[in-house]
This record gives sequence, C-alpha cells and structure tokens, in this order.
Amino acid sequence: MQKQKAYLDCLPRQEAQELWITKLTEVGYFNNLPREKVAVTEALGRVTASVIFAKQSVPHYNGAAMDGIALYAPDSFGAQETAPKRLQLLQPDETFQPGGCYVVDTGDLLPTGTNAVIMIEDVHWVDDQAEVITAATPWQHVRIIGEDIVAKEVVLPEHHLIAPVDMAALLAAGIEEIEVVKRPRVAIIPTGDEIVASRQDLKPGKILDVNGPMLAAAVTQWGGDPVRREIVKDQRAAIEEAILASLKDCDMVVVNAGTSAGREDYTAPILSELGQVLVHGVAIKPGKPVILAICQDKPVIGLPGYPVSAMLTADLFVRSVVLARQKLPQPEQSQVEAFLSRQVPSTIGLEEYLRLSIGSVEGRLVAAPLGRGAGLLSSLTKAQGLLRIDPSSAGIAAGASVPVTFLRSSKPENTILAVGSHDPALELLGFYMRRFKPELSLSFANVGSLGGIMAIRNREAHLAGIHLLDEATGRYNVPYVQKYLSQRKVHLVHFAMRQQGLLVLPGNPKKIYSLEDLLRQDKLTGQKITYVNRQRGTGTRMLLDYQLKKAGIDSSQIVGYEKEVGTHMAVAASVASGTADTGLGLEAAAQALGLDFIPVTDIHQGTGEQYDLLLNFSDHDKVMELILHILKSPDFRRDVEAMGGYDLSKAGMIIEL
Amino acid sequence: MQKQKAYLDCLPRQEAQELWITKLTEVGYFNNLPREKVAVTEALGRVTASVIFAKQSVPHYNGAAMDGIALYAPDSFGAQETAPKRLQLLQPDETFQPGGCYVVDTGDLLPTGTNAVIMIEDVHWVDDQAEVITAATPWQHVRIIGEDIVAKEVVLPEHHLIAPVDMAALLAAGIEEIEVVKRPRVAIIPTGDEIVASRQDLKPGKILDVNGPMLAAAVTQWGGDPVRREIVKDQRAAIEEAILASLKDCDMVVVNAGTSAGREDYTAPILSELGQVLVHGVAIKPGKPVILAICQDKPVIGLPGYPVSAMLTADLFVRSVVLARQKLPQPEQSQVEAFLSRQVPSTIGLEEYLRLSIGSVEGRLVAAPLGRGAGLLSSLTKAQGLLRIDPSSAGIAAGASVPVTFLRSSKPENTILAVGSHDPALELLGFYMRRFKPELSLSFANVGSLGGIMAIRNREAHLAGIHLLDEATGRYNVPYVQKYLSQRKVHLVHFAMRQQGLLVLPGNPKKIYSLEDLLRQDKLTGQKITYVNRQRGTGTRMLLDYQLKKAGIDSSQIVGYEKEVGTHMAVAASVASGTADTGLGLEAAAQALGLDFIPVTDIHQGTGEQYDLLLNFSDHDKVMELILHILKSPDFRRDVEAMGGYDLSKAGMIIEL
Repeated sequence: MQKQKAYLDCLPRQEAQELWITKLTEVGYFNNLPREKVAVTEALGRVTASVIFAKQSVPHYNGAAMDGIALYAPDSFGAQETAPKRLQLLQPDETFQPGGCYVVDTGDLLPTGTNAVIMIEDVHWVDDQAEVITAATPWQHVRIIGEDIVAKEVVLPEHHLIAPVDMAALLAAGIEEIEVVKRPRVAIIPTGDEIVASRQDLKPGKILDVNGPMLAAAVTQWGGDPVRREIVKDQRAAIEEAILASLKDCDMVVVNAGTSAGREDYTAPILSELGQVLVHGVAIKPGKPVILAICQDKPVIGLPGYPVSAMLTADLFVRSVVLARQKLPQPEQSQVEAFLSRQVPSTIGLEEYLRLSIGSVEGRLVAAPLGRGAGLLSSLTKAQGLLRIDPSSAGIAAGASVPVTFLRSSKPENTILAVGSHDPALELLGFYMRRFKPELSLSFANVGSLGGIMAIRNREAHLAGIHLLDEATGRYNVPYVQKYLSQRKVHLVHFAMRQQGLLVLPGNPKKIYSLEDLLRQDKLTGQKITYVNRQRGTGTRMLLDYQLKKAGIDSSQIVGYEKEVGTHMAVAASVASGTADTGLGLEAAAQALGLDFIPVTDIHQGTGEQYDLLLNFSDHDKVMELILHILKSPDFRRDVEAMGGYDLSKAGMIIEL
Repeated sequence: MQKQKAYLDCLPRQEAQELWITKLTEVGYFNNLPREKVAVTEALGRVTASVIFAKQSVPHYNGAAMDGIALYAPDSFGAQETAPKRLQLLQPDETFQPGGCYVVDTGDLLPTGTNAVIMIEDVHWVDDQAEVITAATPWQHVRIIGEDIVAKEVVLPEHHLIAPVDMAALLAAGIEEIEVVKRPRVAIIPTGDEIVASRQDLKPGKILDVNGPMLAAAVTQWGGDPVRREIVKDQRAAIEEAILASLKDCDMVVVNAGTSAGREDYTAPILSELGQVLVHGVAIKPGKPVILAICQDKPVIGLPGYPVSAMLTADLFVRSVVLARQKLPQPEQSQVEAFLSRQVPSTIGLEEYLRLSIGSVEGRLVAAPLGRGAGLLSSLTKAQGLLRIDPSSAGIAAGASVPVTFLRSSKPENTILAVGSHDPALELLGFYMRRFKPELSLSFANVGSLGGIMAIRNREAHLAGIHLLDEATGRYNVPYVQKYLSQRKVHLVHFAMRQQGLLVLPGNPKKIYSLEDLLRQDKLTGQKITYVNRQRGTGTRMLLDYQLKKAGIDSSQIVGYEKEVGTHMAVAASVASGTADTGLGLEAAAQALGLDFIPVTDIHQGTGEQYDLLLNFSDHDKVMELILHILKSPDFRRDVEAMGGYDLSKAGMIIEL
C-alpha cells in the first residue's frame, strides 16, 4: 500500500488571500500589463491601458445649441416687448449682412458673422423678417469649440473601465482606436482518470467535466479569456506537461482537481518543483484543498473537484487576480442583516460558506440555510445569498441576526419562502406564480410538516405544506395547527388529497405488496428487503410509523429504516437505482421515475392523505390571493392531477381553524 | 417661412415610464417571448425560456464522498480503540467478500457489496489489512444517487438568469442544450443631414455619429442584440422607410434624433401615422424631446440628439424594455445620502439629472456637481453618480443632504476631490497618483482659486489649487489662506511657479504684444481685437484685472471681456479656432494647441505666478504623503516642466501659515 501524505496545512482564508496577492504583486504580476489595440466601437467593458488625449475638440466648430435664429448679438440690443427688433432672414448661401439672421437647427454651424442664437419659440415671423423682443447676449445658445473637450485634453484616464458613454466621448474626440489592457488568458486544466468530456463516455464511476465549462464561464464573467484544455489523466508527467504548456501561452493556470492529499494528487508536488507553493490548504468549507502557487512569475492555482468547492474557491482566489490583472475594481461585498431560520452547527477552525434562501417575512429578512454538502450544486443554483461563518464559531443559533451577502440581483421581497413537507406539486405552484408575476420566486426548504409549522410559528416562512394525521381524532392538520399556532393568525388552505404508497421497481421483482413484506427475506438470495426512509418530522415518516404500529410491525426489524432521504423524489431515485428495494412515497414520484406503485392510502377510497398549505400572509395580501386563484384554476388542477395520485377538487378551500 | 410646430407636451418622467410599460404589456409585448436553443456551454447570462427538468440524477451513481476505504458497514460494528477491526484489502477487480474493503478516492464508484466509506486519515494499515477503530454507519461518506438532483426534478425554473454554476448543474443533470429567451433585436436608426458616419466626412457643421455606437453598446450591456442602421437623411419618406424596415426584423426601434419640434423633425408625425404615439416630450433635463410610440405592437422610441440626453433617456426608457423583454430583473437603484458642495438652481416642472463627482471628505460623502449641459459628454464620463432633482424643486442649497445614485462601482473613499483653480499639471498629478495607487481617482471641479478656498473651508474637498496675488503685500496665497481658513487646520504646499501670458495664433497675425493691444483696432478691417476671459474668482481673472488696473485700462472697453470659459485649455481652444483673438492663460495651454505665447508674468525674471496646493488631510494621511512624494520626485517635475512655463524646483515644500 502506497503511503498517504499527511493532510495539508490549513491557512485562514484572509491570510491566504493576502499572501496570494502580495506575492503576485512582488513578482510584478500586476505591472506592465500586456496591452492590445481595439476599435473604440468594440471597447465596451475593456480597460484603458494608458491615458487617452483628445485628438480634436468637442464640439469641433461653433454651432447652434438650440433650434432658432443665428444673429450678430449687437443687432438685437435694445429689443423689448414695446420696441421689437426685426432681422432680415438670409438664406444659407447668402453672405452675412448687418441686421440679418439665419434659421438654424441645433448642431448647425454658426454662420460666419453671427455670434448668438435666439430660440425659435421666441421669434415672431413677419413675412421674411424675424421679430425679437429680447436682446441676445453674445454667444448665447452657442456651443463653442472645445466647450466639452479641448484637443490635447484628457478624455479618459489610465485604467478606466469603458462604458457606452466613454465610447461616445472617444469617438467625438477623434479617437477610433485605443490601447486597452489585454484580457488575461486563463488556462483551465481538468485532471482525473474519472473525468470524461462528454455524456457518451459517462458510466457509473465516471464524472462529466462540468467544472471546466463552469470555470470558463466564470472567467469570462470576470473579463478574462478562458482557455479550456483537454482532460489530463492522473499521471504526474502528463499533468506537469499540461501546466508547462499552459504557462507558455497563458497568464494564469487553473488545475482542477487533484488538489487534496489522496492517492493520485500530484498537483502540489509538481507545483513545488515548477515554482513556489504559497498555500496548500485553506481553512474554508467547502473548499479546503486549494493550492496557491507561483510558477514562472505567473499564478497557478489548484482548485478542489466538487463543483461547489471549485466555484467558491475560484470566487475567492481566481476572481481577484483576474480582475486585478485588468485593473478592474474588486466587487463590493455589501452585506445586510438577516435572521437565520435554523440552527447551524459549525466546525471551529474552518470558515464556512453557507448557501441561503433569503426572503422577507413580515418585514424581516429571513435566511434559510440550504444544503451544506460540497457535492450539492443545487444549493448554489437555488441560493440567493451566502453567510460566512467565522472560523471561531462553533455554530449559530436559530433566530440569530447574521450578515448575509447577496449572490443574485433578486430582491428578497420577491422570494416566497416555502418550508415544511416536500411535494412536487408545490414546484408547479411556483411556476404558475411566476407566470402571473415574473418577479416572484418560490424557494423551498424541506424540513417536514412539523418543521414547517414551527417555521410559520417563528415567522420564518410565508408558506408551509403539511400533511399531519392526528391519530386521536383521525383528522389531518387542523389539530396540529390549533395546538402549535393558536397564538398566530394564519390561513390553512386545502391543497390536495394525495396517494401515498410503496415505490418498487417496474414489474415489482421483489413482490412487495404490503408493509408486512418489509420484514420478508428474498427466498432466492436470503437477503432481506431493504427500505429507504424519510426523515423524522415528515408526514410521510409519521404515516409509515402509524401504519407500522397498526400492523404491529417493529420498525427496528426493517433493514434500511435508519437510511433517511429528504424528498419523495430522492426515495424514488433510491429505489430506481437499486440502493433500496422500496420506500414510502407519492404516486407522482413513482410516475416521474417510471416505478411501480403499491398504494397505502387511496384517494379513490376516501383514505387519501390530506396535504394543506399554511399561509402566513395578511388578509388581503396579493401573493396569497394569487396562490388561491391558482389553486382554484382548472389549468393548475389538471396539471397537478396529471402527475398522478392527486385529487385537487377542493384545492383553494379555506379550512376553518 | 415654414410654420413651426408648438413645443411638445411634457409628461412627468414616472408617468411616462409607467404608461410605456403598461401599454407594451397590454399589447402582449412581454408575453410569449421568442426563444432559441443554445448549447449550455454558451448559455452564460442568458435567461431560461421555460422550466428545465433533469435528464439524469446527480450524482448518477453511488460514489465515495471521501478518499478512504469502502466497506460493508456491519463488518466494522464493534470496532473501538481497544478492540480495532481489521478488514482485508481487496483489489478493484476482486469480488467483494465479507470482511473485505477497497481503497477508494473521492468520486469513485462504490464497489458492489459495500455501503460505507471510512476516511483514509482514520485507517491504520497493517500489511494488507486496514485497521479501523470506529464503527461505520451504513451509507456514511457515500454520495447516493440523486443526492443533489433527482432525474425529472427541476434544475432551473423558467426565466432564470444563467450563472456559471447553473451551467454546471445543467450539464451534470444530462442537459447539453436549452431553450433561452432570444436577445431582443434593437434597431438603432441615426437620422439627420448633419450626421456623418466617419471622420473623413467630418467638417464644420457636420457631427460624427457617436450616438449609434454608444446606444449599441448600451443595448449590448443590457443583454440585447443591437442592429445599427445606416444614417438616414432628414427626409420624411426615408425615415418612414427605415422605421418600417426595422419593424420587420427587429423587436424594438430606436430613432435618433429628430425628436424635437424643429424644422426637420419628422419622427413624431411618422410614428403617429404608423402607430400610436404615447408620449411626445418628457419633463426631464437633459432629454426633454423623447417620443414613446407603439407601432405594429412593438416599441418605437425617439431619443434626443445630444449624447448625454440620448444616454440618459435610453437608460430611462430603453433599458427597462430590453430587460423586461428578456425577463431580466430591473436594476436596483440604491441611493446614499451625500452633501451637495454647490448650490444648484433648477427649473420647476423639469426633473433634472445632475452628474456628480462623489468623494468622502473627513468621513462625509460630498457630491460636487459637474457640467449640466446636454452637450457635455465629459460630464458623464467623469461622473461617479447622479442626483435626480425633483420637478417640484426650484433648486438645492449648497450643503444640503441629497440622495445620490452611483453610476460606477468606484468607491467614494478612493475619489480625491480637487477643486479650485484649473491647471493641466494637476491632471498629471492624478496620473502619478494612480500609478502608485491604482484605486485612486482625482476628480476636478474648476471653481477658481477663491472657490477652492471656500470648498476647503466647507470641508467639501481634499485639495485645492490656488494662485491668488494679494495686491497689498505682493504675496501669493498665504494672506488669503490666513484670512479665510484661520479656523481650519490645512496644509499649504508649493506646487509650481507658472508662466501666464496672452495666447495668440501662430505667427501672431494680429500683432498683439501687450495688454494695451486689447483696445486696438485692426488697421485693415477696422475690427477690434476680441478677447476670451476666465470666470470671476479665478486667479487668472484676478491677474488680468490687476494688470489692467496697473496699466490703466478700462476693462469695459475690451471686446469679449464678458465671454467667460472655464479652463486654460478652453481659452486656448477659443483662440485656436478664431472665436477670439487672444486670452490670458498658461504657456502650457499655448504649447498644447500650438499657439504663440506672449508672457505677462515671467518665471525667468522672478515675476512668475505662484500656484500652490491647499491640502485638507490629517497629518500623516497616506494620500497626502503620496502627493508630497510625487511633487518632490524628479520624474514628475520633469514631466510638468516639459509642458512649458513651469518651474517646479520648490514643489512639495510646505509653506508656513
């Protein structure tokens, strides 16, 4: 067995960032930047490489600043309402004569001999004569040469980010081509035996190179010029060769991944040989295994392999370099305070970047943590903001006020926070809401029905989907709302009767027909049936436990009872992939993944499960009215029922509390 | 004489904006948007046309989430420090046997038969056996199928702006191509007999089409697809034809200009014929003559001709439509409070957009108004922010706190506000500062020496250039600082001795050799010599008046004495263009525009003019130290002296007050 390297030293994030920029500055990486010529018309978003001086004045002639008449101002001296002055209209080709005037439009060359303009609104025409009742002062309403920019004056300073109006100023000043800072070429080298470039080569154990396109897009967004290299196998010589080749024609090299200290992580030793490794390991989560190195006076960075880690670390260590290498300003990270909706434990010594849904509930900003795993891309696609948890923190309590940074330009007022029990039909509700109000977005946190009730109680959500059977009364939801939300004014609205049941592979190869079968051994293999469960506090888990109790089944005897997943679709995915033989879930989830479905509740026999929405809105809130409108609309009902196992005939009905 | 149309009705800006969007919404312009397919790798910054569902689960197999060993969890049950369990290492091609384990790297397929991973750091190797001292729970450190995204689940909602991480999520979910909202095609039609497309055709009275490239760049920046049309002459039929052609293949038409009510402004009547003119004239400044129309259910907008007006009105009326047509969020206009450094009169009934320099002086944000003319492109290229002056306001007092909107991402802490007397060498100081500290920018407000002293007194600037001769003592600057700034702790630092004199055309054709010549008539033409003056409060104006008094010349006899311009370069431009025969200014300005120079003061004879800097910084401020360092540096002194008429031998010397 080959020896494993001890794990990386772990520098605090800020120290690593400072060291990185300081060392790059020391080797002169941000000086004497490469430049190139571009046409002004192509210069949007580029950065001037040096000061730009005007080649001609703006305006380049004395011109009329208004539509009106051009005259020699002294000819109008003395004019007043009781004693108007009349000026003889001259044609454009006539030479100026004292007492004459020309009609001019804005921008017209001021005719020789004239030195002022009177606005057309102030001129009264009497045949071919212009009558004026106010004296013109010399040069009034005249744009004189150089009024805006004088030839040889500065039009734009060095390192100026070019906006549309700057292009107009340059062109007006007679400049058609300028020198700009070259976009930094950033090589992106994907490494790993398991990485494949196309879906055709994808099989279990292989991973599609999604980081390459993602990092290239990020570099583009930061003004750089990404150069995507071929995937390199986990072979030391091959990786070294790829890095050397990229150092030749690029300004920066990103190696992804092979940055931790696993069996085949060659990046760090190679970079130590080619140059200086400044940092190997940064105390952040996700993202720990980062390598910052300088080779041939150029930055070379090793990023971790998980997409979320790769993106967050690129944001911390690639972006600043790409921007600085173009003299672009570093982005402002403005923070706002929000209330954290759930407790978040944290590891001392690691700075964690927690992804958040952020919404405004009852006037307070509420931040709901999304999935924390480095493998969860969806946690970043859904995130509106980030919370940086200090490395000195062992965790943050629910309800604490925390500083959050926005990731997208979406306004928290437009984010509707939905918590509670997961149902695919809720997503459909979200789409319908956006169809009516495009600015709205519905954000989900799947915390189970009980969790949803608690979130509404704590004023941390707008909406919660719940399906909780009260064993004592046999009623759904109402007893729980009465028990936990008696102090709060909320609305309980009926959404759907649902079909729950056991999901099994198509054709039901293990012959699972009831909950009793969960204890059965397969006759051929002697293996027991394996189950995949939902987490505690969910209605589905409570339904299972209730049904098991009714059937007298001891849950500890079920293989897989301890394996919990977060959504109906995750249950279906576990079954579809063979990770488990069965699990309790919605018919819609079975239908989505082509599984067979063994009903445990039945909407056709009146034993359907009642799924309702708790709405935390004031009485005539427009969003709530929109939700009720959608629930009652035939289109929406039809679309949900088509998913399978839903009865929406009473959707939108307000339930008395 | 043709009849002039009465001037436009003037709708308030907000009403016009609301009417515009409402009417476009009514005709369905923002529904059923055109869509197109793009590769996910090309989708950065695009907007999804519909919901996107996963084609495969992410991850698509059960894999190791850590580098370590894969095992069947129950084989480790009971392991503890005092009683470790040993697992036999199996090779990847060996079939699983109870009590066996495999070495796995992060991302590897979990070998059949195993259901957990123990981190490599927690494994102790004894020959071919892995010794573990803690039991593994089933599925620990395993990424199970669909943990991130389940097949058929939503990856991205409809109308989602695609970021790099979204591209990774799409690719991981098996999606290689998506439907996005098409970029709206925006036709830009420049109109006007005076507009030319290239510098070659530029002559007095002609204007280069700078708005076309500017508006095209702005449309690009807003995500649209600009289509620049040929310049159209001021002929009704030609303009109509161009609009009709653009309506055929574009989503929006911008006509620029011909939007006011001058002789040749056909746009409004044409649009009335082709469709409905919603608004003709908006009560804003700059920008009043805006036309908003809907033709063939598409927006057609007429923008005014001055670049600043065109840009500001495009920002108000084109941007929102281009964004909404892509379902992109409208930008947030965050405002901050700043102190206005100068009084700003305003016209009741017009909403004015005042361009501002914004800096932080002694911890307060100070906003200094820039030039207000619609013709001043430089006012927008130099602006850091905008102030919207309410139409109900007749003006704002100096020192008032006003809400300003930032135009650029520059931080006000990095803007050094320079006021007072204008000197081209100050710009050079600005470049040197940026060379040492790229984030700094020096912003100038030319308010004359006295204005500079007042701005420092009112804590509205960091730096003021002054050159004020005290007639009583014959000393420069110190008496004024003592008089006006006795209450404030400031630093007065020597900058340069300067040469001032009369600027005349090369070869001095009018034979102007002294101030006495300003009263002279040209012998040939009988015309008097014309002068161009600097504004009151400037050191140059005071120098002129002092010299005139000494020479016994009555200033009212000087033709042009009342014509004031704002900078030395503007004086030089007036002379170079023949607008005036001469003016008092710096030798450097004469040299820049190739003029002859008749000295009035002389640095070589000890009568040079003393130009100093007032610095409003605390004692050891880094910016002040940088300025002193630059003033003393040989490079800077050489560069300034090369401009002509400067002596910097004492630059940087602190003057005792």
